Amino acid sequence: MGGPELERLIGLFAKLPGLGPRSARRIVLKLLRERETRLLPLAEALEAVAASVRTCSVCGNLDSCDPCMICVNPARERRICVVESVADLWALERALIYRGTYHVLGGSLSALAGRGPEDLAIASLLERLERDPPEEIILAMPATVDGAATGHYLAEKLKRYGVPVSRLAQGVPMGGALEVLDEGTLATALRARRLA
Amino acid sequence: MGGPELERLIGLFAKLPGLGPRSARRIVLKLLRERETRLLPLAEALEAVAASVRTCSVCGNLDSCDPCMICVNPARERRICVVESVADLWALERALIYRGTYHVLGGSLSALAGRGPEDLAIASLLERLERDPPEEIILAMPATVDGAATGHYLAEKLKRYGVPVSRLAQGVPMGGALEVLDEGTLATALRARRLA
Ligand SMILES: [Zn+2]
Ligand SMILES: [Zn+2]
Repeated sequence: MGGPELERLIGLFAKLPGLGPRSARRIVLKLLRERETRLLPLAEALEAVAASVRTCSVCGNLDSCDPCMICVNPARERRICVVESVADLWALERALIYRGTYHVLGGSLSALAGRGPEDLAIASLLERLERDPPEEIILAMPATVDGAATGHYLAEKLKRYGVPVSRLAQGVPMGGALEVLDEGTLATALRARRLA
Repeated sequence: MGGPELERLIGLFAKLPGLGPRSARRIVLKLLRERETRLLPLAEALEAVAASVRTCSVCGNLDSCDPCMICVNPARERRICVVESVADLWALERALIYRGTYHVLGGSLSALAGRGPEDLAIASLLERLERDPPEEIILAMPATVDGAATGHYLAEKLKRYGVPVSRLAQGVPMGGALEVLDEGTLATALRARRLA
């Protein structure tokens, strides 16, 4: 019902992460009820992003200029924070606690998924270090098996550049009640305990 | 981060029903990673829907033709099922159990929301009955206080047209464990019990 255009639109929404046929129908009906204020602006915003946003050739961030606003900002500290994804880069930027630059790997090493070093943006990171050595490299990999393996691999690779390499601390997240944390997090937090 | 186009797109997604900033960012990153297969098709599908889909001037359904495919289908039975929304119409169509036509009210009467008869598509329903009387009118209002009030109001209004008016049965939904049902549903199901 609703004609082929509507069926197609609902199908495209339904395949987006976190959505399904039911939520896609709800969204499309809402868009149609507010055509001028929602449907048309969304179509235009998608076109604008498709036309303007590209991957930064230096760090892998997404932005409407290349190099991105972070890479060209002279006020940024000469540190490189290595992250798995643009989502992780954005999370750090939102936290407003880091003033250096980034390097997006595009994933973690994974034997299971068959992802090796050549599938990640590692060569471009090493080139970057040779061209313009930073003061520090921070490995901000996720606290997963693959993330840890990727961190170890990179730490090894980076040794010969003579640049300090650090990692994010692991432990109890802010506001985290101990009882809901998994054993791995608790064990790490206990091992890394500090004098109070 | 990501430039004004990206910020704007994330903001528009975040305001859609069931979504927020976090899910909007996830969706937009997914779209950007699969530009050719997701981002551009979605932009095009939105444009196509904006250009083609309109409200049926007979029944209030949404379709790319007016009157809609349901209204112009001569195989449809000469019954009118009165529903609150296009979402409800679609739900009945998906169930494949009804072969008549529809009338979308656009809401229920609601003292709280200040919605009276003139805010709903009631005048167009009455005109439709005078122009072309159906064999039956089925009131498929939701089982809520407002839905029941709307049903009573319509049943009263429709009396003078001499057309049989029916309502959906209320009771235990299929697959519904009794223990999770609210007391209102249980009471209705018990009162409307039948000989087994
Ligand atoms: Zn960059
Ligand atoms: Zn129609």
